[in-house]
Amino acid sequence: MFTHRQTLQYNSTPEAPDAVYARKLQEVIGGQYGEITVAMQYSFQAWNAHIPGKYRDMLFGTAAEEFGHVEMLATMVAQLLEKAPLGITEEAIQNDPAVAAVIGGTDVQHGIVAGAGARPVDSMGNPWSGSYVTASGNLLADMTSNINAEMQGRTQVARLYHMTDDHGIRDMLSFLLARDTMHQNQWVAAVKELQEDGLEEMPTPSNFPQSKEATEYSYDYYNFSDGPAAAEGSWASGPTPDGKGTFGYQAEPMAGVPMPPPTHPDARFYGTTEQPNMVEKAAGRIQDKLNKE
Amino acid sequence: MFTHRQTLQYNSTPEAPDAVYARKLQEVIGGQYGEITVAMQYSFQAWNAHIPGKYRDMLFGTAAEEFGHVEMLATMVAQLLEKAPLGITEEAIQNDPAVAAVIGGTDVQHGIVAGAGARPVDSMGNPWSGSYVTASGNLLADMTSNINAEMQGRTQVARLYHMTDDHGIRDMLSFLLARDTMHQNQWVAAVKELQEDGLEEMPTPSNFPQSKEATEYSYDYYNFSDGPAAAEGSWASGPTPDGKGTFGYQAEPMAGVPMPPPTHPDARFYGTTEQPNMVEKAAGRIQDKLNKE
Amino acid sequence: MFTHRQTLQYNSTPEAPDAVYARKLQEVIGGQYGEITVAMQYSFQAWNAHIPGKYRDMLFGTAAEEFGHVEMLATMVAQLLEKAPLGITEEAIQNDPAVAAVIGGTDVQHGIVAGAGARPVDSMGNPWSGSYVTASGNLLADMTSNINAEMQGRTQVARLYHMTDDHGIRDMLSFLLARDTMHQNQWVAAVKELQEDGLEEMPTPSNFPQSKEATEYSYDYYNFSDGPAAAEGSWASGPTPDGKGTFGYQAEPMAGVPMPPPTHPDARFYGTTEQPNMVEKAAGRIQDKLNKE
Amino acid sequence: MFTHRQTLQYNSTPEAPDAVYARKLQEVIGGQYGEITVAMQYSFQAWNAHIPGKYRDMLFGTAAEEFGHVEMLATMVAQLLEKAPLGITEEAIQNDPAVAAVIGGTDVQHGIVAGAGARPVDSMGNPWSGSYVTASGNLLADMTSNINAEMQGRTQVARLYHMTDDHGIRDMLSFLLARDTMHQNQWVAAVKELQEDGLEEMPTPSNFPQSKEATEYSYDYYNFSDGPAAAEGSWASGPTPDGKGTFGYQAEPMAGVPMPPPTHPDARFYGTTEQPNMVEKAAGRIQDKLNKE
Amino acid sequence: MFTHRQTLQYNSTPEAPDAVYARKLQEVIGGQYGEITVAMQYSFQAWNAHIPGKYRDMLFGTAAEEFGHVEMLATMVAQLLEKAPLGITEEAIQNDPAVAAVIGGTDVQHGIVAGAGARPVDSMGNPWSGSYVTASGNLLADMTSNINAEMQGRTQVARLYHMTDDHGIRDMLSFLLARDTMHQNQWVAAVKELQEDGLEEMPTPSNFPQSKEATEYSYDYYNFSDGPAAAEGSWASGPTPDGKGTFGYQAEPMAGVPMPPPTHPDARFYGTTEQPNMVEKAAGRIQDKLNKE
Amino acid sequence: MFTHRQTLQYNSTPEAPDAVYARKLQEVIGGQYGEITVAMQYSFQAWNAHIPGKYRDMLFGTAAEEFGHVEMLATMVAQLLEKAPLGITEEAIQNDPAVAAVIGGTDVQHGIVAGAGARPVDSMGNPWSGSYVTASGNLLADMTSNINAEMQGRTQVARLYHMTDDHGIRDMLSFLLARDTMHQNQWVAAVKELQEDGLEEMPTPSNFPQSKEATEYSYDYYNFSDGPAAAEGSWASGPTPDGKGTFGYQAEPMAGVPMPPPTHPDARFYGTTEQPNMVEKAAGRIQDKLNKE
Repeated sequence: MFTHRQTLQYNSTPEAPDAVYARKLQEVIGGQYGEITVAMQYSFQAWNAHIPGKYRDMLFGTAAEEFGHVEMLATMVAQLLEKAPLGITEEAIQNDPAVAAVIGGTDVQHGIVAGAGARPVDSMGNPWSGSYVTASGNLLADMTSNINAEMQGRTQVARLYHMTDDHGIRDMLSFLLARDTMHQNQWVAAVKELQEDGLEEMPTPSNFPQSKEATEYSYDYYNFSDGPAAAEGSWASGPTPDGKGTFGYQAEPMAGVPMPPPTHPDARFYGTTEQPNMVEKAAGRIQDKLNKE
Repeated sequence: MFTHRQTLQYNSTPEAPDAVYARKLQEVIGGQYGEITVAMQYSFQAWNAHIPGKYRDMLFGTAAEEFGHVEMLATMVAQLLEKAPLGITEEAIQNDPAVAAVIGGTDVQHGIVAGAGARPVDSMGNPWSGSYVTASGNLLADMTSNINAEMQGRTQVARLYHMTDDHGIRDMLSFLLARDTMHQNQWVAAVKELQEDGLEEMPTPSNFPQSKEATEYSYDYYNFSDGPAAAEGSWASGPTPDGKGTFGYQAEPMAGVPMPPPTHPDARFYGTTEQPNMVEKAAGRIQDKLNKE
Repeated sequence: MFTHRQTLQYNSTPEAPDAVYARKLQEVIGGQYGEITVAMQYSFQAWNAHIPGKYRDMLFGTAAEEFGHVEMLATMVAQLLEKAPLGITEEAIQNDPAVAAVIGGTDVQHGIVAGAGARPVDSMGNPWSGSYVTASGNLLADMTSNINAEMQGRTQVARLYHMTDDHGIRDMLSFLLARDTMHQNQWVAAVKELQEDGLEEMPTPSNFPQSKEATEYSYDYYNFSDGPAAAEGSWASGPTPDGKGTFGYQAEPMAGVPMPPPTHPDARFYGTTEQPNMVEKAAGRIQDKLNKE
Repeated sequence: MFTHRQTLQYNSTPEAPDAVYARKLQEVIGGQYGEITVAMQYSFQAWNAHIPGKYRDMLFGTAAEEFGHVEMLATMVAQLLEKAPLGITEEAIQNDPAVAAVIGGTDVQHGIVAGAGARPVDSMGNPWSGSYVTASGNLLADMTSNINAEMQGRTQVARLYHMTDDHGIRDMLSFLLARDTMHQNQWVAAVKELQEDGLEEMPTPSNFPQSKEATEYSYDYYNFSDGPAAAEGSWASGPTPDGKGTFGYQAEPMAGVPMPPPTHPDARFYGTTEQPNMVEKAAGRIQDKLNKE
Repeated sequence: MFTHRQTLQYNSTPEAPDAVYARKLQEVIGGQYGEITVAMQYSFQAWNAHIPGKYRDMLFGTAAEEFGHVEMLATMVAQLLEKAPLGITEEAIQNDPAVAAVIGGTDVQHGIVAGAGARPVDSMGNPWSGSYVTASGNLLADMTSNINAEMQGRTQVARLYHMTDDHGIRDMLSFLLARDTMHQNQWVAAVKELQEDGLEEMPTPSNFPQSKEATEYSYDYYNFSDGPAAAEGSWASGPTPDGKGTFGYQAEPMAGVPMPPPTHPDARFYGTTEQPNMVEKAAGRIQDKLNKE
Repeated sequence: MFTHRQTLQYNSTPEAPDAVYARKLQEVIGGQYGEITVAMQYSFQAWNAHIPGKYRDMLFGTAAEEFGHVEMLATMVAQLLEKAPLGITEEAIQNDPAVAAVIGGTDVQHGIVAGAGARPVDSMGNPWSGSYVTASGNLLADMTSNINAEMQGRTQVARLYHMTDDHGIRDMLSFLLARDTMHQNQWVAAVKELQEDGLEEMPTPSNFPQSKEATEYSYDYYNFSDGPAAAEGSWASGPTPDGKGTFGYQAEPMAGVPMPPPTHPDARFYGTTEQPNMVEKAAGRIQDKLNKE
């Protein structure tokens, strides 16, 4: 059950309108690594969790916080749009390139669709998608996904920080950066603790019987490109992080096996298959060409 | 530049047709964490890399391998479909529930659209999307994303392993599991090496000046749910993994700040705003109700 | 700010596992009119609202409730999947059509991707999309959208009610049906009140100066099909609901105006345009045909 | 069966080229509430209708009109693009910010993909999606959806009206505004008539036996946020619009019930579950921390 | 302008209900090559056409026909669903595998969302997308796209023909097959006529000055795979179809040029770049490994 | 199996940074007809092919080349972005319309998400989709699709050529134009050869027994629009390209057949159906209106 409180976690008021920046902020609302993603991801991980206690409580505790971040950003976007030129004629004098330039960089749906409000989309206008969410039930995998989400998210916020001089926006971003710092640390700590608690280990999923794996391929790097420096990395020699093997380096791909022959499904699928006279025709064609040369 | 070789890395021939299983295999071809995703993700990370040498060479070396995994799986899918019932009438006697049951579980586009061939979609038929790819240019964040991708992928393959008794399929999966083991280890090693090389550290991005962060919020867990066990985790006390702080635990959300007032954009957006007589009308309405009670 | 409580609004436990039904329930979690949609829609309408007070408070109040409905349904889905056959071999004896039939009707990602958990998708596996959300800032339009969302949602829940005999599921659905009844009534009441408060009226948006409308076309039904019964409706004669006109009925479309000529963009777009000799060629071609006849 | 006539319902020729405006017009061609949506929505509602006569005839009659609106808008877009700068070098002198500004605001696919033509996308370039269509077979729900579609659509056209001074565009929009006025009135009239005809009533679907609903929750507003003004609305007391109940107001959410315990699916899904020694480990860990303090 | 007539082009009534087949038919309604695609594609090609006359008239003439095909199919789907089991409990006795099997193969949204009606989606439930449409303004390219669409469409209908024994369905499909035969021939004839009329030729776009092309690469096949038989095709020697060159065969890819060095964007994007001590660290690391061996 | 080589097929270095052009280039990376599409399409066609030899070898040989084109373009995009203004504050002085204008035309995710790198999206930011791929197993249909893809692709590259004066970009495009010329010719040759080899013919699929087609509709053009010039085309008279019929011209649509009556599904789908008293009510309503007039 979720309840709502009409306060924000932190200040979210810009100094001045800026419709172009409002569009950029949409990335961290409704983008692949925006706040909707982490709010939904931590929620579904909690609902799909199989153990009660600290991990699930933390997932719920942080999921709800992230919905509040969506709210802070949506509130900011609405304020950035409030007095900004959004294409209404008097304000957007078409002959003034300075105004036109600004309008060129806006999310035009901010005006046409939302009437100067926020939307559940990213900075290029793609609607948020449920396919951004990861919740497999395996907490080691999922919390590694969470570390990544917070790293990508903090990187995006850091970039956005440098895209404005507005103190109000920067103030809010300084808070989001701090929470991303916390959450990165939190998920890294949780990933370590999951292993210390003996719940999971690498390779994930750790309970899969490694006897069913073709282990002769489990610890060798095969170089499918021609860059030789890949051999210099710690992934090319020495013990493996899972503690179960030793890295090897193969400068070339495995020899491989022949491809199986092409399939011949039921004729009523009307795929193209050999015809009786095909080989003869091809032979005759080649002969013709030879004759002409 | 990519070149192609008409051999497969490993055996990819099933013992028997199985259209339902072919559909399930689509998940690891064209799903969020399928082989197309990792092939494209490692490629874009290499193209977006800013340093030559071991990391980029490895990205290229593994990206090309993953395209070969797509090929192994597509080859397997075609064979699983070759002799399987796909709804053609004679074979799919509608009165035989055993056959109908099989057909119920197939990807019907395997027959209608692909003529018994593989498709760039997941196991529910959603087309693969470029939005599955992560390539930010920050290698610590991106390679953490790669660990996650290999963990999710190996978990899915492990589940698929238990969904069939076909020795041919299981043989191929045993190879993919082994490569996922390698790649999990590889990215974990690379993430460690990036930090040992002094290229990145936590919190990512590490060069962002922490002075610009609201650091009073950087290391405290705020519990936005009512599960008390979140306090028991290593994320609630003790040193933080980034080595720069100490975890704190706050049993309640921060007090917060008042929401800014609602915005009033240009009237020509036709959003609903207060009318002069609104308050009086509301007051009259409430009075009316009181009178009736 | 949102906070979370580890209780559910109402009972959400099924009597027995049922993976096929779990898939169907996904519709009201992550479908076009599922609970994620209404939770996000009411949230964005509140964030985009331009007046404080009763309307915005209600939007917040109901938005948070709807997130709790997502949780109830996700909890139910996980339980329906807990002991259900999801394709793992021993349980899913391929020769038993009864089991195979069940598996045919499942969301195969429930097993492969979520490990027997819920997902932010609809009953056909389409991920939830931000494009389902309506929040224009015009409350009369938006709350009419809400009436529709609750009507569609309640209709879907009513259909789902008849698709199971499980008392646990039906019990939970009886609660959701009740809340949908409340919310239908709530939005209808709000739409009426918005008009009584003098905030909006029909046609929406009501402040647009009707002098700028081609009013000769504002109240006539033009019949673009050949079904004559459209003339019998209340939309074909009598006063219009907006109180500003009288319905007319035109049995045929308006005469219309000629299409403007095709455009001729810059030649460097390489669209196909007339060539000097085109008309002559065409004339010669027709003559040839005539000669042959 | 549909037939086509090479005339337009109304004038659709701009005074001057304007590529930026052409992009904006795409919203009402291929957006969530654009003309493709209503054309397809009314068509599918007619095909899914279960009663012959006035309602279905009207659905067909209006559906065909809406396809003609798509045509008017596509024709207008092509003309707006005909002589406009679309990035071709000579015209788009990169040093001239006035031209560059214009180009910044265009849909670049108008030039690259369509060669200065219209596209089935919205103003941010998202392709039109079948998921925008609502056609449930329940006419009261569906026609309420239609009222909303016309309200949102007219609001967008009204906003677009103020984004240009071009008399040709405004002339065309004045016609579309008029038709939206008609259609809003039409669907409102139809919704009323459906109820007067005894075909449907609220709550929709009205034939669902209310005995199967948890009616103690059917007419109470529960406030999941802390805004007190929600109590002032007509949805908080008095008779309900469906005529079957009385609104109540609950200042707090229902007490709720405990969440069911987390699920434990088959181990071969490799979700994270408790390990035998987990509790001891956690206890030891907490003890260690206490000792250090 | 489009008008509608309440007749169908041809019979569209099945002998018996069949919900599984209804789902399959969705492919040719709302799939990549379904009737919505061709109806919309031919419409947009007509609206984007730059020459009046026979080509554009034909595009309009066939576009409108295709909308009628959508209608025929939607009508058929509704009838196939009318009496079919769609999951309602009494009919779908869960213990009867025969019924369960049928239900497993249905589009569950046919029941839950559309109440036994058709939907604008494909056979796997993906909503129709505007991205399926091709309309570039270049008629040779676009009508080649149309040939392909009719070929893919007819192949799908042919496959669907063999997936049922129902005489009513087969009768309707026999009509659609005939129209696809016509339309294939029609577009092939048009492509030939466009060239005879001197409007376009190969390579398309034909007016692009070939002097600006790196013509040394314009007519050679480079073999990027190791299959030698590619040399046997007519594309490996002899005159080219555009009449402007001679095919050559290169058994290996071009030598190529070195990749440019990785980029170094502004540091505030926080991409990973070399650090001063990176090379030394790597050297030390390699030395350490050597020492250990 | 694919292997990678760290060389490019051709020069790919621009003279100067240009973020707006980088965005435009995304169309031919990740658009409907971009290089990812052809690389994946030819790969899936090869994997789904049913005959070994020249056709399949060529598909593999060209597929791998196209992946290299993606790489050339991604490399170019990264360089175009390297020194370009992407919104970072110092560089993007908000008061300078010239800079603002540039920024208005960029893909803002290039900076925020990719840190000045390429992305698997089109020029409007839509992620690449697996739904762009065509691979039916019928080589005549599929290779016709390939002709179209190369025609659309070359048209887009030609347009892009005129959108820049940068010699480095134009040099790379001159190579891509040349390869598109080759590939257009290649697929046209292959389509001809497939027919000469007796593998396929028109109408496709050619093995479908034409006796099962309603052949009275197979060769007549029906004019569903009112443009008379459609009669002038070669598709309106004379022999058909498939050599099996004679084109006819019908100035009007076929008479058609009556629509079947609306369906009446199970009442528990709650679709709107007639009520006993509906006709009487309607009659009374009409009478009332008449009385009032």
